[in-house]
Amino acid sequence: MTFDDKLRSAIGKNNSLLCVGLDTDVSRLPEGVNAASFNRAIIDATRDIVCAYKPNLAFYEARGIEGLRVLEETLAYVPSGIPVIGDAKRGDIGNTATFYARALFETLGFDAATVNPYLGFDSVEPFIRYVDRGIFLLCRTSNRSARDFQDLVVDGRPLFEHVAHKAMEWNTNNNIGLVVGATYPEELGRIRRLCPSTPLLIPGIGSQGGDVEAVVRHGTDETGAGILVNVSRAVLYASGCSDFAAAARGVACDLRDEINRRRANRRGT
Amino acid sequence: MTFDDKLRSAIGKNNSLLCVGLDTDVSRLPEGVNAASFNRAIIDATRDIVCAYKPNLAFYEARGIEGLRVLEETLAYVPSGIPVIGDAKRGDIGNTATFYARALFETLGFDAATVNPYLGFDSVEPFIRYVDRGIFLLCRTSNRSARDFQDLVVDGRPLFEHVAHKAMEWNTNNNIGLVVGATYPEELGRIRRLCPSTPLLIPGIGSQGGDVEAVVRHGTDETGAGILVNVSRAVLYASGCSDFAAAARGVACDLRDEINRRRANRRGT
Repeated sequence: MTFDDKLRSAIGKNNSLLCVGLDTDVSRLPEGVNAASFNRAIIDATRDIVCAYKPNLAFYEARGIEGLRVLEETLAYVPSGIPVIGDAKRGDIGNTATFYARALFETLGFDAATVNPYLGFDSVEPFIRYVDRGIFLLCRTSNRSARDFQDLVVDGRPLFEHVAHKAMEWNTNNNIGLVVGATYPEELGRIRRLCPSTPLLIPGIGSQGGDVEAVVRHGTDETGAGILVNVSRAVLYASGCSDFAAAARGVACDLRDEINRRRANRRGT
Repeated sequence: MTFDDKLRSAIGKNNSLLCVGLDTDVSRLPEGVNAASFNRAIIDATRDIVCAYKPNLAFYEARGIEGLRVLEETLAYVPSGIPVIGDAKRGDIGNTATFYARALFETLGFDAATVNPYLGFDSVEPFIRYVDRGIFLLCRTSNRSARDFQDLVVDGRPLFEHVAHKAMEWNTNNNIGLVVGATYPEELGRIRRLCPSTPLLIPGIGSQGGDVEAVVRHGTDETGAGILVNVSRAVLYASGCSDFAAAARGVACDLRDEINRRRANRRGT
């Protein structure tokens, strides 16, 4: 089963384009709850309303071996039908990229991973070689400084469009998607027009201020899907108290439903 | 003590601009030698002839918790006077980058780290905030596909020159260097002219085919220094047998001496 098949199946089963980012910051957990049990509770509270989970490796690496243990436990706990995206943003020369791909796809067993494009094709190839896994290449990121380099104009078009173009050229195994921030809806629209059927992983909703209506309007493909809307902090820390899991479910449910409502409106127009 | 002070001190003491990359691939170790004892032997064999070590995290991450344990043991084994650069090439939005910086500088305790520029200033700032640590921003990498994006022309200059320019603008804590591949000596020269006093971390000598004479000619600053020439595979796997440490020392010694000879010639001209 490819990543795409697994993702489509989860989207269908849970009627959801919502991805929950497991960016678990131990300094923000409710009293008496450790990272592993926090993640388990978040998964239990959202497993029927998400299409994917996306742990960001930085939050686990900051805690060394203990963090890596929590990450492994969390991955083992995700229901087998829900794909898990390793948000690692790796990028290195080919020989090294082979080891990063092994770390993410074999050692940790992610279904997909985020990859940085700056080093070009031979840094991406070791990942796409895993035909049953997916990669999401950073294209236009959600942060303010994204414009420092990603917007620089090359031959009349911003750099991020060149990345999108190359991603399509490289996509012979049909397993490349793009990361595009919700905080830049116009850029999202440009990328969708350039890549009509490429899956887009869209962070930036919630704490970062992106707007669901704009994301659905600019990001969805012609089937009304083709996007994974990621939310992390707004779901994980919806409540800082013992009701955190129920609160997380509430926020996640509202987001899933809002996304679906906007999709229905869009199909209606 | 800043990273720069520590590096200068090691350069002086060992009369060396050579950095040994600890990219330890367990499939290439001599029979009966494990990764931790291999690294210890390499360090013992080279500690008086290098100015820095540079473990590449991919090789450790590929082995999960066991790999991380080897990395920690290796870091603890490096003599305190020799700086260690974490070759991680991380890059993420500010909130996440804070956790990557913590992972590399606090949890693992590296003296410096490599960082990917694609996400712009707010992805770099959490690293440079550690004023006693160094960062090396990827500028022109050593791999073949570096040209896919790094050479794209923006306002008459390749993208990598814009990265070099921004790095200088951001360098208010005086702790930013650049990664420039030995395999592109002309580009190295352009970057040195743009950034006369920026430390350059230069991979690509050895297995990747870069040339020491060209690196010294194009890369050194006006004091005849300002470069860290990194070699990994050519040193680590100089022999696949039980004499690996002596063979590694031989190759490392020859490289250190060749770099110094080229520096002397250059000063003589």
